[in-house]
Amino acid sequence: MMKSEIKKHLDVTAPKHRLRQRLHHIIFDADTPAAKLFDILLFIAIVLSVAGMMLESVGPFNAKFRFELQLLDWVLTILFTIEYVLRIWTTGKPWKYIFSFYGIVDLLAILPTYIAFFISGAHTLSIIRAIRLIRIFRVLKLVQFVGEANNLAKSLKASASKIIVFLFFIFIVCIIVGTMMFLIEGGENGFTSIPRSIYWAVVTLSTVGYGDISPGTPLGQFLAMILMILGYSVIAVPTGLVTAGVIKNSDKKEVERIASTKSCPECNAIGHLDGAEFCYTCGSKL
Amino acid sequence: MMKSEIKKHLDVTAPKHRLRQRLHHIIFDADTPAAKLFDILLFIAIVLSVAGMMLESVGPFNAKFRFELQLLDWVLTILFTIEYVLRIWTTGKPWKYIFSFYGIVDLLAILPTYIAFFISGAHTLSIIRAIRLIRIFRVLKLVQFVGEANNLAKSLKASASKIIVFLFFIFIVCIIVGTMMFLIEGGENGFTSIPRSIYWAVVTLSTVGYGDISPGTPLGQFLAMILMILGYSVIAVPTGLVTAGVIKNSDKKEVERIASTKSCPECNAIGHLDGAEFCYTCGSKL
Amino acid sequence: MMKSEIKKHLDVTAPKHRLRQRLHHIIFDADTPAAKLFDILLFIAIVLSVAGMMLESVGPFNAKFRFELQLLDWVLTILFTIEYVLRIWTTGKPWKYIFSFYGIVDLLAILPTYIAFFISGAHTLSIIRAIRLIRIFRVLKLVQFVGEANNLAKSLKASASKIIVFLFFIFIVCIIVGTMMFLIEGGENGFTSIPRSIYWAVVTLSTVGYGDISPGTPLGQFLAMILMILGYSVIAVPTGLVTAGVIKNSDKKEVERIASTKSCPECNAIGHLDGAEFCYTCGSKL
Amino acid sequence: MMKSEIKKHLDVTAPKHRLRQRLHHIIFDADTPAAKLFDILLFIAIVLSVAGMMLESVGPFNAKFRFELQLLDWVLTILFTIEYVLRIWTTGKPWKYIFSFYGIVDLLAILPTYIAFFISGAHTLSIIRAIRLIRIFRVLKLVQFVGEANNLAKSLKASASKIIVFLFFIFIVCIIVGTMMFLIEGGENGFTSIPRSIYWAVVTLSTVGYGDISPGTPLGQFLAMILMILGYSVIAVPTGLVTAGVIKNSDKKEVERIASTKSCPECNAIGHLDGAEFCYTCGSKL
Repeated sequence: MMKSEIKKHLDVTAPKHRLRQRLHHIIFDADTPAAKLFDILLFIAIVLSVAGMMLESVGPFNAKFRFELQLLDWVLTILFTIEYVLRIWTTGKPWKYIFSFYGIVDLLAILPTYIAFFISGAHTLSIIRAIRLIRIFRVLKLVQFVGEANNLAKSLKASASKIIVFLFFIFIVCIIVGTMMFLIEGGENGFTSIPRSIYWAVVTLSTVGYGDISPGTPLGQFLAMILMILGYSVIAVPTGLVTAGVIKNSDKKEVERIASTKSCPECNAIGHLDGAEFCYTCGSKL
Repeated sequence: MMKSEIKKHLDVTAPKHRLRQRLHHIIFDADTPAAKLFDILLFIAIVLSVAGMMLESVGPFNAKFRFELQLLDWVLTILFTIEYVLRIWTTGKPWKYIFSFYGIVDLLAILPTYIAFFISGAHTLSIIRAIRLIRIFRVLKLVQFVGEANNLAKSLKASASKIIVFLFFIFIVCIIVGTMMFLIEGGENGFTSIPRSIYWAVVTLSTVGYGDISPGTPLGQFLAMILMILGYSVIAVPTGLVTAGVIKNSDKKEVERIASTKSCPECNAIGHLDGAEFCYTCGSKL
Repeated sequence: MMKSEIKKHLDVTAPKHRLRQRLHHIIFDADTPAAKLFDILLFIAIVLSVAGMMLESVGPFNAKFRFELQLLDWVLTILFTIEYVLRIWTTGKPWKYIFSFYGIVDLLAILPTYIAFFISGAHTLSIIRAIRLIRIFRVLKLVQFVGEANNLAKSLKASASKIIVFLFFIFIVCIIVGTMMFLIEGGENGFTSIPRSIYWAVVTLSTVGYGDISPGTPLGQFLAMILMILGYSVIAVPTGLVTAGVIKNSDKKEVERIASTKSCPECNAIGHLDGAEFCYTCGSKL
Repeated sequence: MMKSEIKKHLDVTAPKHRLRQRLHHIIFDADTPAAKLFDILLFIAIVLSVAGMMLESVGPFNAKFRFELQLLDWVLTILFTIEYVLRIWTTGKPWKYIFSFYGIVDLLAILPTYIAFFISGAHTLSIIRAIRLIRIFRVLKLVQFVGEANNLAKSLKASASKIIVFLFFIFIVCIIVGTMMFLIEGGENGFTSIPRSIYWAVVTLSTVGYGDISPGTPLGQFLAMILMILGYSVIAVPTGLVTAGVIKNSDKKEVERIASTKSCPECNAIGHLDGAEFCYTCGSKL
């Protein structure tokens, strides 16, 4: 208590520290108007950047607006770079951030543009920028939906092990049926190898049914029918499991951990209880 | 009370007012034989009109019965115009009706035929008449299904926010997988741009599977298999949420608001409690 | 009581009546070894007859085994005719049976073969024999599954009105989206008329996705994506309703009506309580 | 008690018996590090063997690595042969094992390689090796997932009879609709025979929708639409049944039979209660 109070006192007096703390608050948190505005701007920047990347891949559009798209990319990349540097500077433990999941994502989101600038042939690399989309989850995590997503995740976690057993069973069925179809159809109608036949089995059992490969022999069609009806019926299993999980979860009515949107200034951990004064991960003052 | 009693007295004595009130009752309500008959006739007229519009789009049929179809359209349009004028005349607050949702729909349902008559090239416009279909909901709202649809909507509303989170997650997965497929398949097999690849991802994850675009490379097929199994499994999530909502809703056994099919003569608001004497929206006598 | 006892006495004494009663018992009931055997034989005959009809439609198979298939059909038709005559003879109220649902089905199941014999061109008519399949339900109704099917039907009936509202909503969505697609795609890519576009919308929303018609324009693909995600999500609604119905039904634990497999000798009504002595429909002695 | 104690005493003294018992423990059980290691190695060997078989079917890959793949197959086949011999030797009742389900699977998993060696043309036979995959279930049964899979199976068993009734209904619907489509489409658009039309009906009702066969006539498309909406709606039925089963099962909270991973040294039965000293099947000492 004593020590943290002194630390807080020091923080308040040092002006550089104060700026860092305020910036940390704006960048990592979402409970003040400034912090919320930052998140909204970041959200828009990410969406713009991904939209630009998509349009770049559309042949005729790229031919027409090549310059505008590249300009947009550079402006956003520079903004993301500034954000990245600020994140490193404001965090108490920079290396921990740099090697954290989001730290690496942030780096990968800006690197491709710079590399493509220096190495001319590295244009395909630029699609790695799609990784910027993942950053949207961080923005959303802080702003909204925390409670909903948490509840959903909790419901799913309860039935996860059962669903994995189920998917494993589905996978083995697909391998066995795929092998049988390879034998029955014998290379014709697209069943040219066992892996391709397994691909067909997954396409069929999941009721997707592209039709790029479809059985031609009566026996193959008969086996396909059984697989379809199986796929049509067993979809009930994961649904039943998840439903039971959701109902159970909503029945519990347990005291939910009221998560504030604050983040630790030292380790950036989120999900602190409302009113908590110390980080539950590193113990530093919030 | 006093004021409304006097108003009621006035209504009864004025014959024009009495006709207006009776017509309002027939057009907007559904609790007397005359009002029910009106709704049934309107329903038939809408169905006929939409069926006519559909058949008009069928090349050989249109060539043969062009005159009959146009006659049908004109008869129905004139009937709908009379209905529109009566609705304006009988309503206490005409402007409120004109700019309400159904007021605009009613207008858009009759305009195209008149415009196509005066401007010869405006034939494509005539498809806007499909908007007439929306009017079916009003007829049904008054006649039947009110309770059922309300219950359904209530169940869905409870889990709506969770389902939106889920759809947002699905959408981001589709963008990421679509971008990856564009990289992997490289323009071949139909993956010519990122938006098209995202379209493919949605087609696959929703288990629709047209087959207009389908992966050709082993790696692409592997990624497609994962996406399919994901789509096949996660369909359990909205189902689980809705089911839990429906069960909860049916467990509540709360005192349902018994909605009468009466509508307010002033503002046309519906959903009044059975036995209510004043409109809950504008306070005028029912 | 008195009257029925006398009637029973008479039944026992008259040998022709006794034969009729015994045959009625064998043909319509399923609670003695003889009656069960009859049902099993009938089941086999129906399956054989339908299998024969199917194989007849397979070109090369029909060319090779035309005689055998026709022989099979004649043998089975004669057997079914004998059964039909016996059903009429053993029933107390023949006309009621003849004009009942199953009576008409039984007649339609044997007529085509005779008609095709006298009128040479009536071969297409012979497919009406597929109606024989419906008779399988009667056999099963008496033998097994009565309880299970009843429970299922009860669960579904409870949520039927909600599901109809839902299907109606789905249908209107398909009409509106189909009309929009016809406007957007404009006759290309298979959207040649509004009915065809509605067909496409149903194919898409139900996640079947043949791919015989698929959108080619970016706007059309965007609308298709929305429709797919809608179809993928709203499948949760009927599932939720049925699940809630099944759970509620299984919670009730009400005293189930123990249905015996006996049928009334007069009116052939089934579903009598175990131990019932008089038919609940016509009051005659069981 | 007395007898088994003496037997145990004898077992301990005879060194050959001891080796057999220890091997039995390693091969059939999964509760010691050695036994777990054996299961993991067996798992890897099965996966390797199936992967090799798959790759063998890929034309270009087989051309390049034919020798390596055949070597892998021989090494694994010899290892599986040794395992098979050890299983026979260590089991108390060898014949019971040999004619048990897994005994036959183990034999079929090694035979094809030997037969293909002696008879040169029997290469297609080698795909029977895919049967090795089934052996994975045994490994998993002992190691993990026992509880989860058991719970799932229990939930499904409760609603199995209802689901079978449902599938039977689905099947009859497919036959009737298939026959109708054969009549309506008349050999065109791929509906060349009734079995093929039934295949199409299953493809449609299960919402797979390959598109290899799709209706071309308006009437055919209308019938297809009804079938699709039916398929889309009735999927709710098995889902509802399974969900109700899962919820009921998880509500019961009955005292679960705590299954140990031990297997009987005499009859290889598994699923003994934790702490059980005698096999519940054959009564021999565990």
